[in-house]
Amino acid sequence: MSEQVKLTIVFPDGSEENYFSEKGDTLWKTLEIIGVDTGGICGGTGICGKCKTKVEGAVSPVSQEEKQHLLPDEIKMGERLACYYRVDKPLTVVLNKNDNLAKSNLKLKFYNEKKTHENNIKVKKIFINGLDANSPVTLQERLLEGVNPYFLMLNPDNYNELVKLDRAGRPTLELYAVILDDKVIPNISKEKENIYGLAIDIGSTTISGALINLENGELVGLKNVTNMQRVYGEDILSRVAYSTIDQSNKDRLQKLLINNINSLIDSFQKNVCAQNIYKVVVVGNPVMLHFLSGLDVSGFGSSPFVGVIADEFVLKANSIGLNVNEMANMILLPQLGGFVGADTTACMLNLPYNSNSNFLLIDIGTNGEIVLCKNRELWATSAAAGPAFEGGSLKCGTRAIQGSIDRVFLQDRKFRFNVIGNTLAKGICGSGVIDLIACLRQVDCLDENGVIKNNIKTYFDVLDENNYNEIVIINGESTYNGYPIIFTQEDIRQVQLAKAAIRSAVEVLMTVAKLDYKDLDNIYLAGAFGSFIDPENAIKIGLLPNVAKNKIKNIGNAALDGAILALINKGIKEKAKDLKNITKIIDLANTDNFNDIYIKNIGFTAKS
Amino acid sequence: MSEQVKLTIVFPDGSEENYFSEKGDTLWKTLEIIGVDTGGICGGTGICGKCKTKVEGAVSPVSQEEKQHLLPDEIKMGERLACYYRVDKPLTVVLNKNDNLAKSNLKLKFYNEKKTHENNIKVKKIFINGLDANSPVTLQERLLEGVNPYFLMLNPDNYNELVKLDRAGRPTLELYAVILDDKVIPNISKEKENIYGLAIDIGSTTISGALINLENGELVGLKNVTNMQRVYGEDILSRVAYSTIDQSNKDRLQKLLINNINSLIDSFQKNVCAQNIYKVVVVGNPVMLHFLSGLDVSGFGSSPFVGVIADEFVLKANSIGLNVNEMANMILLPQLGGFVGADTTACMLNLPYNSNSNFLLIDIGTNGEIVLCKNRELWATSAAAGPAFEGGSLKCGTRAIQGSIDRVFLQDRKFRFNVIGNTLAKGICGSGVIDLIACLRQVDCLDENGVIKNNIKTYFDVLDENNYNEIVIINGESTYNGYPIIFTQEDIRQVQLAKAAIRSAVEVLMTVAKLDYKDLDNIYLAGAFGSFIDPENAIKIGLLPNVAKNKIKNIGNAALDGAILALINKGIKEKAKDLKNITKIIDLANTDNFNDIYIKNIGFTAKS
Repeated sequence: MSEQVKLTIVFPDGSEENYFSEKGDTLWKTLEIIGVDTGGICGGTGICGKCKTKVEGAVSPVSQEEKQHLLPDEIKMGERLACYYRVDKPLTVVLNKNDNLAKSNLKLKFYNEKKTHENNIKVKKIFINGLDANSPVTLQERLLEGVNPYFLMLNPDNYNELVKLDRAGRPTLELYAVILDDKVIPNISKEKENIYGLAIDIGSTTISGALINLENGELVGLKNVTNMQRVYGEDILSRVAYSTIDQSNKDRLQKLLINNINSLIDSFQKNVCAQNIYKVVVVGNPVMLHFLSGLDVSGFGSSPFVGVIADEFVLKANSIGLNVNEMANMILLPQLGGFVGADTTACMLNLPYNSNSNFLLIDIGTNGEIVLCKNRELWATSAAAGPAFEGGSLKCGTRAIQGSIDRVFLQDRKFRFNVIGNTLAKGICGSGVIDLIACLRQVDCLDENGVIKNNIKTYFDVLDENNYNEIVIINGESTYNGYPIIFTQEDIRQVQLAKAAIRSAVEVLMTVAKLDYKDLDNIYLAGAFGSFIDPENAIKIGLLPNVAKNKIKNIGNAALDGAILALINKGIKEKAKDLKNITKIIDLANTDNFNDIYIKNIGFTAKS
Repeated sequence: MSEQVKLTIVFPDGSEENYFSEKGDTLWKTLEIIGVDTGGICGGTGICGKCKTKVEGAVSPVSQEEKQHLLPDEIKMGERLACYYRVDKPLTVVLNKNDNLAKSNLKLKFYNEKKTHENNIKVKKIFINGLDANSPVTLQERLLEGVNPYFLMLNPDNYNELVKLDRAGRPTLELYAVILDDKVIPNISKEKENIYGLAIDIGSTTISGALINLENGELVGLKNVTNMQRVYGEDILSRVAYSTIDQSNKDRLQKLLINNINSLIDSFQKNVCAQNIYKVVVVGNPVMLHFLSGLDVSGFGSSPFVGVIADEFVLKANSIGLNVNEMANMILLPQLGGFVGADTTACMLNLPYNSNSNFLLIDIGTNGEIVLCKNRELWATSAAAGPAFEGGSLKCGTRAIQGSIDRVFLQDRKFRFNVIGNTLAKGICGSGVIDLIACLRQVDCLDENGVIKNNIKTYFDVLDENNYNEIVIINGESTYNGYPIIFTQEDIRQVQLAKAAIRSAVEVLMTVAKLDYKDLDNIYLAGAFGSFIDPENAIKIGLLPNVAKNKIKNIGNAALDGAILALINKGIKEKAKDLKNITKIIDLANTDNFNDIYIKNIGFTAKS
């Protein structure tokens, strides 16, 4: 075995943990294995220059390659590129000033409101006869009598544990049996143990998990982790491309998701034994579900763009390596179809799709999923929005992390900014960008077509006096690294494209369904981005239709919420299958005059 | 990894195979791993001196310890003690002159007579729609449509195999689906593959296996292997004692059985992929079933002598390491109770226990199991016969192997011997011993109480002229190693004890059931020993009751036969459970006046 080097990681809250790296490995590789997101997006290949990480201790000299990516001030502060840094001596990695952990902002609207619970996993007290030395009967036979009419499926280890209690002459034994599906008993124990279920929503960027006590439906743990596949590309299709190069790449991407989920389980585990997790429900986009299961993803990479599975898919969770009870099933909920995944199915589970309601569900990510419900009829589509709303592809864009500008507003005709965590600013995230554009429109510094006007200088400095293409929204004095935060004409173009993609998709569904915007009862915004967005500004720039503000409802992490519902309510799986069956998938690429619609939606104007 | 040394093994049929040993390991350890029975019975601890093995090549010098166990002639012939021999250079091991493989004499009486077959595992041709590029539907959804109403449970690898065939534009796909229990589809393939089931009977000495084509019920493979646990003790209770010393011993004994069964599967595998084995039925004595499953066996080692399970027990076969399809269940049939195991249950499955018949089933091994059926009522017991009938504990006793005397008869008042394989004699096995005693009684050289008379010298040489305690039945000229084969007064005592144990058990059951011997319709003899026994001689020495010869039926390896029946006939599992429920277990130790009965049966006299 090769030599191990100690790595001390200082977390943002000041806590320290020790890990070990193989001597000579890059810091990037080690952090990836541990599950720390360096922010890099090129798979550690030395190209993107984003895996800046602060190190302390006996650090090695900065290489020429690193100098090409690091500013002199960053070098002075101890920043290094993790993908170039080879760990050969004990090292301290300080994450508290460079916290790339996604801001945990999990909101479970429906779970918190309803707390319905009607589960098919229970714990029941049973009594079995003691061992009679004069007429010995095996433990198994006495258990079979005691659990009648349930079906006993204990593994040998469980029997071996119980037989230790089974001394001859002892009277009746009081035991606790776990009962699955009102039918099967996979475990019997002396002490009553809690039984848990795990709900997981795998997004391309973030994986959210909830641990639920299956007996009473209570939420025991709730957490986000960064999807570590990110290091192999921000967007899904580049991960598909990477995985199809060879099998080991595909295995690696699967393993990353499994590690991600196992680390979630681990973080929930203060009082929870992974063996007590008896059910796992997973939602996510189709590609993530395929990666997780180890299914071939190459179908997503080329025409006709279709995966291997779309309906419900059940596997023994431990067959892929999830650290849960060996009897636990992992249930992937049905996908609605095409690129509209099980996350969208899950979002819908809590919405009134089988009432007389007309509503839109919009979940904006790199792909935007949109479902339209018109009086029990359903249409769904997926729009390639690109990463702009998640801060990707913008010059100073970030996801919603510590230090992101998430709100922009006007006060006395001056621009004001809110920074997440009230720290020095690092960049601007999607909700901030929407606000900024709406405010720029309001003070008439941006025309309808998204061109920055020359009066911009009333409000902001510009980098180049001649073309106003780059405006300084926060100068270096108030930023994390001393460099200004810039917003550019090109950034605006990116937002236009993203916004047009979403809005056009909405329009296509409305047209197909022959529904007027005025007849919409609600617009539900799901997902992390939906949680941050200012509806009024989203309407002002034309992202959302111009409906009464009170019709726009933020439903938080509705995908995880739906997964929890499926976890704790036994009838929900059938509802999910029905949803899949009744939803019509609209393929935008095959929609007549889609380009016209798209062009029409490029402008920043409120419209219904 | 440590250095590997090549070991060439020459098998009795002249075939050679190469194996690798870790340098420095004993030859005993390597042969044990490979699955070659050295004949040793002390677990390689250097005590028993029975692991004599012929080696050739660059052999190391004979050690002092070996010289204590080996005769000069054996050393000259290249014999070594495998437990002392450390493998440090390439070596050839010649098994053809020292064949300790049990003689394969598997007889499947019922299977061959009936060949009934009504199974719940099938292969069905299915058709699924091709992938339509214009309206792509996932493979899973098209499969679900194609296999309706069956339940699809393919693993991701299977999907990934099928998706390779699934090119857009290709018309209908013709595929083959395996269907379990008329319900679940665990596998779909392009080419029709055979599906198999495995029936296993684990005896303390021998493990028998049969591979059956589940579609047509045909026997594809049939084989015996030596139970490699033997190296940790001939009798079951010494293995129990060994296993309770620590967990690793228990794991080791389990692993030996699993390796044994996997090597059986391997030997069947010319045209069979282990992945195509979808069902495993195992029978055997209770202790063996516990060892195989990894269940606690300590209950068998002390009062009240009860195991953990006695009813049917089902596990995923691959959870303990059997090399079969991951969906395959391993089904242990119910044990009748006490030390009467699932092997006896299996024997009964083919017998007319639910008719108006009165019969005895006798399966003689180290433990003898006896079942009495009287007009649909059933009683069963287990008698500790000891190893005499299997050649153990006799001075020149052997199991029924090449070179064993298996028949003794009188011709013109001279003793004649049959040797298995017509080779030089090595020893005498159980059937030979019964014949020999019957013949000695016939010529009046042995009195009723088992004492050798002085007229023995009319027929045989004796070693000591004064006491006739050791008689030479074959002199050194006609034996394998040049040393005479001896039969002793002490050997006769051992046989008396074994015979009395069996016959007393029979008598107890007859008394409990209030049945006269004359009312017996049949006596069924099961197992390897039953296959060799001469019924007339067994009656003469009082082992079997004095009934008409045509009532005694040899039913061959009835335990394996019953396991096969359970494998290929779906209703049989319920029959086995019924059998368990209706059979009354008689505990001889708690039977009044058992000792009197036992003493009464010590003599060598025919009696009813």
